Amino acid sequence: MNFEQTISEYRQAIERRLDAYMAQERIPASLREAMGYSLLGGGKRLRPVLTLAACDLFNGNRDAALPFACALEMIHTYSLIHDDLPCMDNDDFRRGKPSSHKAFGEATAVLAGDGLLSYAFEILADATLVWQQQISSYLVALQEIARAAGISGMIAGQMADLESEKDACADAERLRYIHARKTGAMLRASLMAGAYVGNPSDAEAAAMARFGGLYGMLFQITDDILDVEGSLISLGKTPGKDKVEGKLTYPSCYGMETSKEMARETAEEATEILKGFGERSWFLIALTERTLARKS
Amino acid sequence: MNFEQTISEYRQAIERRLDAYMAQERIPASLREAMGYSLLGGGKRLRPVLTLAACDLFNGNRDAALPFACALEMIHTYSLIHDDLPCMDNDDFRRGKPSSHKAFGEATAVLAGDGLLSYAFEILADATLVWQQQISSYLVALQEIARAAGISGMIAGQMADLESEKDACADAERLRYIHARKTGAMLRASLMAGAYVGNPSDAEAAAMARFGGLYGMLFQITDDILDVEGSLISLGKTPGKDKVEGKLTYPSCYGMETSKEMARETAEEATEILKGFGERSWFLIALTERTLARKS
Repeated sequence: MNFEQTISEYRQAIERRLDAYMAQERIPASLREAMGYSLLGGGKRLRPVLTLAACDLFNGNRDAALPFACALEMIHTYSLIHDDLPCMDNDDFRRGKPSSHKAFGEATAVLAGDGLLSYAFEILADATLVWQQQISSYLVALQEIARAAGISGMIAGQMADLESEKDACADAERLRYIHARKTGAMLRASLMAGAYVGNPSDAEAAAMARFGGLYGMLFQITDDILDVEGSLISLGKTPGKDKVEGKLTYPSCYGMETSKEMARETAEEATEILKGFGERSWFLIALTERTLARKS
Repeated sequence: MNFEQTISEYRQAIERRLDAYMAQERIPASLREAMGYSLLGGGKRLRPVLTLAACDLFNGNRDAALPFACALEMIHTYSLIHDDLPCMDNDDFRRGKPSSHKAFGEATAVLAGDGLLSYAFEILADATLVWQQQISSYLVALQEIARAAGISGMIAGQMADLESEKDACADAERLRYIHARKTGAMLRASLMAGAYVGNPSDAEAAAMARFGGLYGMLFQITDDILDVEGSLISLGKTPGKDKVEGKLTYPSCYGMETSKEMARETAEEATEILKGFGERSWFLIALTERTLARKS
């Protein structure tokens, strides 16, 4: 199996479906323009790729997984739009172009974010109703996504992150709390949603949840490292912002060398869990390696 | 049956359940404070009252309807918080006290709104999974709510409203478009969610949908009238803002007398539909009368 070919297949399927969702005439033109500006034509599509990969690992129906994958990308994108607002992180660039409020003004950016979050749940409700034969399992997938996006997931992480900027004292436990929620919860939910479409056993779901937790941590450690070592061109966003803003990060908390060591150990542990699934897990193993080595 | 006693029973059930949802320890303290500030201890609870009343009309399970009712109030509250932001309507008062961004700052207000919207869907997913015996019907209720809150519902209305401020030309069709979506969709969904918990026939659901559309219109016409004729004390928000901001309203479009006549006609038509349900509809008939005569 070829990693590049497979991830490119996943991405094409995701792009096509996202395009179709955004082409719906019932979305008012100006709202569609703002939502599409942030959602379409860019991004690594990591979350929806995780969903499709987890679905394939359990031989799930990829067509059924696609709405979940796209909803996760929409929720991720809404969080970026709101996060970039002047009252939040005040970031002028995202994915290599002006952020939403720079391109459309603040009011439209708030609504574009609200719109993407709401549309995601509309898509999830529709998808769950379509696949009646497995309705409970799909509802559990929806529930995982709602929890991850919600007030003990991503939003809790955002809130703690907001407060940590006021709080100069770096604190390892707080760092883990923020990252597990702000980034980790949605990455884990992306995997769990795909897995539930594949109807896993309880043991398989538990193993996937453990992998998801570790993968989320790996992603955040490498993200923090890249903010120090990356460039505007490779990242598509302003590097070095964490330090300027005094944000709590793995390098600020543990130093760069220890952070890199933690990333390696987390990747190893994650890979061990995946090996338990046998050969079917080749793609997620390769993705974990590439996440450890990533430059963007 | 006594209207005041029944609505007070509904409200007590709603307040208790909202309190319970907001008491959950897994919500970070500062987020809980901001969400609770806007959600708890006030408001007419019109949307959740409509849900419980529609559920009762179809002899549905009120315990099962309560999560839907509370989710609708959360979505309504999130929309108010975001709507009050400086970049949107820039309103400093809401429900008789400082609006969220005035009390907690803009960043927290954005997150409190995002949190309420996400929590609503978490509650909806949980509620749907609990009542397995009627899972499809409950999912349709969830779907109605997602649509109403979404990009062809409330958010479409907000977006059109935002644009109409730039657009001096008052236009009856645009006015109807905005109000049907910005306010009407959620009021209609509140009724439909309660109805679906009661498992209505297709004809009953269609009649409730027609009533919902008319009730939403009645509510908005009277709301626009009150913005001209009301006071800060009775409304709990700044009156006269529509005119200052050049907003498209029923009085600005049709004049005050015609607006009042439209309200009366809409209420009559709505009541006719309710009469088709027989005696069970007494509460919604009384509520419609009171909406027509409302002072707040």
